[in-house]
Amino acid sequence: MDPRRRVGANRPPQQRRAPRIDLDDVIYGIHAVDEMLVAGEPLRHVHVGDDRKRDPALKNLLERARAANVPVRFESRAYFASFPYKAHQGVVAFGEPFAYAGLDEVIEAGKRARPALFVVLDHVTDPHNVGAIIRSAECAGATAVILPERRSAGVNPTVRKSSAGATAFLPVARVANVALAVRTLKKAGAWVYGAAIGEGAKPYGTLDFRGDVAFVIGAEGTGLTPLVRRECDALVEIPLRGRVQSLNASVAAGILLYEAVRQRGAPPP
Amino acid sequence: MDPRRRVGANRPPQQRRAPRIDLDDVIYGIHAVDEMLVAGEPLRHVHVGDDRKRDPALKNLLERARAANVPVRFESRAYFASFPYKAHQGVVAFGEPFAYAGLDEVIEAGKRARPALFVVLDHVTDPHNVGAIIRSAECAGATAVILPERRSAGVNPTVRKSSAGATAFLPVARVANVALAVRTLKKAGAWVYGAAIGEGAKPYGTLDFRGDVAFVIGAEGTGLTPLVRRECDALVEIPLRGRVQSLNASVAAGILLYEAVRQRGAPPP
Repeated sequence: MDPRRRVGANRPPQQRRAPRIDLDDVIYGIHAVDEMLVAGEPLRHVHVGDDRKRDPALKNLLERARAANVPVRFESRAYFASFPYKAHQGVVAFGEPFAYAGLDEVIEAGKRARPALFVVLDHVTDPHNVGAIIRSAECAGATAVILPERRSAGVNPTVRKSSAGATAFLPVARVANVALAVRTLKKAGAWVYGAAIGEGAKPYGTLDFRGDVAFVIGAEGTGLTPLVRRECDALVEIPLRGRVQSLNASVAAGILLYEAVRQRGAPPP
Repeated sequence: MDPRRRVGANRPPQQRRAPRIDLDDVIYGIHAVDEMLVAGEPLRHVHVGDDRKRDPALKNLLERARAANVPVRFESRAYFASFPYKAHQGVVAFGEPFAYAGLDEVIEAGKRARPALFVVLDHVTDPHNVGAIIRSAECAGATAVILPERRSAGVNPTVRKSSAGATAFLPVARVANVALAVRTLKKAGAWVYGAAIGEGAKPYGTLDFRGDVAFVIGAEGTGLTPLVRRECDALVEIPLRGRVQSLNASVAAGILLYEAVRQRGAPPP
């Protein structure tokens, strides 16, 4: 994959000229960048404000970057002024771009898997949740995770870290339109269950997940988008026994995935 | 509870003199403090560096604090120099202290619950995980969460936020010693299952969780501490079908809690 992959790569040529960065691959802030270096995450380069060159708060970070052979470039205030996030603290790092799978590819893999097990993320924005869901999917032996290009965390360095390495093993497909992806999965023979609460949702323990299955997980707080909800074959809920209105998205995904594992029994030897 | 509760409140009087803050109740950094204000979390006061009084990056934060009637105090560099975390960005907020339950209290509640369902956190440090576990426990109708005083996230503002309000409904007990708490739970009649991987751990689907049960969740990365591990009645594992070595701690806790819910069947009407 082109290491200089850009936001806007799908736009018509006349709009494509200005070199852009894929914000998914950007980490900013002293703590976040330092954490990546400590974790040994591959970084392409680190940019540090001129005025922070000798800042004791950055001493460890700069030493770690040097030890990891990550090039450090010192930049003017103007550079950081153009940076889209304000909490950069004069430290910005660029990670390696992620190699997404195509939807067709993961559907093909699902045909080989028999039964297939997909997780579709309907605009889950918290990278810790996206990472934890990819991790759970990999642990449950799922086929792939499918997530949208927009209004969703992509596989950025925080997601990779939260996935505990799962992004290196499990295919992740990025699609332009979640509702369309759901329709494609249904056409390919999968039963698509949207995680929801109330309103016609069936308790997850009463459904049969032994065939090809896709679980759709909605955004934190707002749940499934109406279009995606309508495309699902059925809505599935995890019963709540307390006063809190929902489980964390990654916990809900984990419970559904492991219910499928439980129903399918031991894997072939 | 005394709003000026202090770290070291259990120490002998001669060591107790210096007024200390409970770091669990402290939020620092522009983004973190602003997030708390946006979420409407109760804050006692916000301290801002003198030199940031007119910083445009703090404009929204200061307006929100004013709107929420949270007192703002401007402090010198010396104040922030003594602050234990370096990434404060000249903004520190103090939340309301959390009212922990006692271990005896939650054990009593467990006797009324029949069967009881506890989650014990063996030094889980990530506040998002601690919050998500408290949330899942509340959703699963658990009796209480038990966590240690040291080397663990306490119920700090990040935990409360991640718990989606569950810390207001579910008792959380804080204990000096997790192994001792496990022994106390066993004496009170609970079966204590430590979440582990391999080495004598039984698949969670093969165990009976219908009686009084406590699940012990170990720290991210390192798992159960040896002493706590030895105190458990049995070790329980969630089968892994991929190459990643473990599930996220809060996902594992959610899967175990909901397996107990599944086995126990519908709650009495």
